[in-house]
Amino acid sequence: MNAFVDKLLQSQERTGSLICVGLDSDYDKLPKHLLKAEDPVYEFNMAIVDATKDHCCAYKPNLAFYEALGPRGWETLKHTIMHIPEEIPIVIDAKRGDIGNTAAKYAEAIFDDLEADAVTLNPYMGFDSIEPFLQYENGFAFILALTSNEGARDFQYLESMGKPLYMHIVEKVKQWNHDENLGLVVGASASEQIKQIREVAGAMPFLIPGVGAQGGDLHKAVEYGTADEGIILMNISRGIIFTSKDEKFAEGAAESLARYNERINQVRVESAATAVLGTSAEEE
Amino acid sequence: MNAFVDKLLQSQERTGSLICVGLDSDYDKLPKHLLKAEDPVYEFNMAIVDATKDHCCAYKPNLAFYEALGPRGWETLKHTIMHIPEEIPIVIDAKRGDIGNTAAKYAEAIFDDLEADAVTLNPYMGFDSIEPFLQYENGFAFILALTSNEGARDFQYLESMGKPLYMHIVEKVKQWNHDENLGLVVGASASEQIKQIREVAGAMPFLIPGVGAQGGDLHKAVEYGTADEGIILMNISRGIIFTSKDEKFAEGAAESLARYNERINQVRVESAATAVLGTSAEEE
Repeated sequence: MNAFVDKLLQSQERTGSLICVGLDSDYDKLPKHLLKAEDPVYEFNMAIVDATKDHCCAYKPNLAFYEALGPRGWETLKHTIMHIPEEIPIVIDAKRGDIGNTAAKYAEAIFDDLEADAVTLNPYMGFDSIEPFLQYENGFAFILALTSNEGARDFQYLESMGKPLYMHIVEKVKQWNHDENLGLVVGASASEQIKQIREVAGAMPFLIPGVGAQGGDLHKAVEYGTADEGIILMNISRGIIFTSKDEKFAEGAAESLARYNERINQVRVESAATAVLGTSAEEE
Repeated sequence: MNAFVDKLLQSQERTGSLICVGLDSDYDKLPKHLLKAEDPVYEFNMAIVDATKDHCCAYKPNLAFYEALGPRGWETLKHTIMHIPEEIPIVIDAKRGDIGNTAAKYAEAIFDDLEADAVTLNPYMGFDSIEPFLQYENGFAFILALTSNEGARDFQYLESMGKPLYMHIVEKVKQWNHDENLGLVVGASASEQIKQIREVAGAMPFLIPGVGAQGGDLHKAVEYGTADEGIILMNISRGIIFTSKDEKFAEGAAESLARYNERINQVRVESAATAVLGTSAEEE
């Protein structure tokens, strides 16, 4: 089994959580009292990690929020990663995609320099833009299939040969997945599509954003995403880390995480019950 | 006129060159004697810029080569940008694409922190992933339409409603271009497609990679790209900066740039002659 998937499943088992906390730690949204610290974003991240680490299964920093701070941002991110316990997997949300020799450098940045466990990638440039990331024996990549934003409608649903573009991507990713080191990003705002993609993709891990601030349907996303023993990682960023912006922001994040865990685990219990009782329960 | 386009046209007029030098300054490919410098990539970039600045119209650092060096890489890039004369436009090759609030942070990194003139973006996530970059009055973005790599075949040519995916992107970019702050990336390896895209896109600037190390057809790319008064920026990276790897690497780069300028300007002269003589010259 791929090292990331193994670490993720252990982490989900240990914490009982399917939630990935998105460290989209926007400097402009930090609690005001932190701004006098030497590295406010790091102080914020440390407190969030300390308050949530026993009840989430992964962390996902999005590079944009660190790059916006310039060179200091990369230091902040490295320090944050060092602060996250070794047993919790880290997904770098990078959405990179470039020609082979360039993609190899992004892979170096993410797996060697940042020492992350997994990354998100954009498929538009095709296989040679993904392939350098697959060279890392312990690496893992989630490929954007269907995203949770409004702009997803611009191109991702275009029909070609009877299938939407995102489904062409799902099929290619399945072909490229010889070493079981690929997963898919599938936005929760498109729950019917999660069902359809799960049917094609098999148990491959899905990273599912969009149930927090973006308002996607949590119930359906979990139900359809976990069908056929599918592995899922429910990402929530703003909906957890910016729950409260006063001195108790970390407690606020922990409480929000607890509420999301409860909602998600309720769906898992119901789905398990349905599976045991068979479809007859639905038919009655 | 958009500030970047104005700066670019002045730079092309002043230098007589349509070439953008790609600063894909891969640490692993630097001339050996530079490795003992405190910041080898910066030493390399300074020498390349000093040797080429009067004969190219723009520079394009690709972020991957700087990110691979960690926090130091961002410092190197910022120093490099400060070393490039103010009158030469800088395109940051980033190929970013993320949801709105995240894209806004990437825009901050590129236009505020790095103070670049233009950026490359990936369209897969649609308009809201592009829009924050358009908020910068002096900013400019080249959107990936058709790329120069082999993987371009995986998705970019998929036909939908009688048109390939890349043409759907061209049409959307044209719609989004109210403020004339958008251009397209069109790889030179697909010269017939450059012709077709120019017909649809009007004079909009094209960033054309792929004529150097990637071996695209320079003649056709220039001829078709400049049709209908189209603005083009021919990017060459490895084919210029890594021409020679000994102590005379900067002279090697300058010589290679001169040869490419000569070849490109020969095509421009021929195209201008054809335009003056009309199609009769071709028909004879």
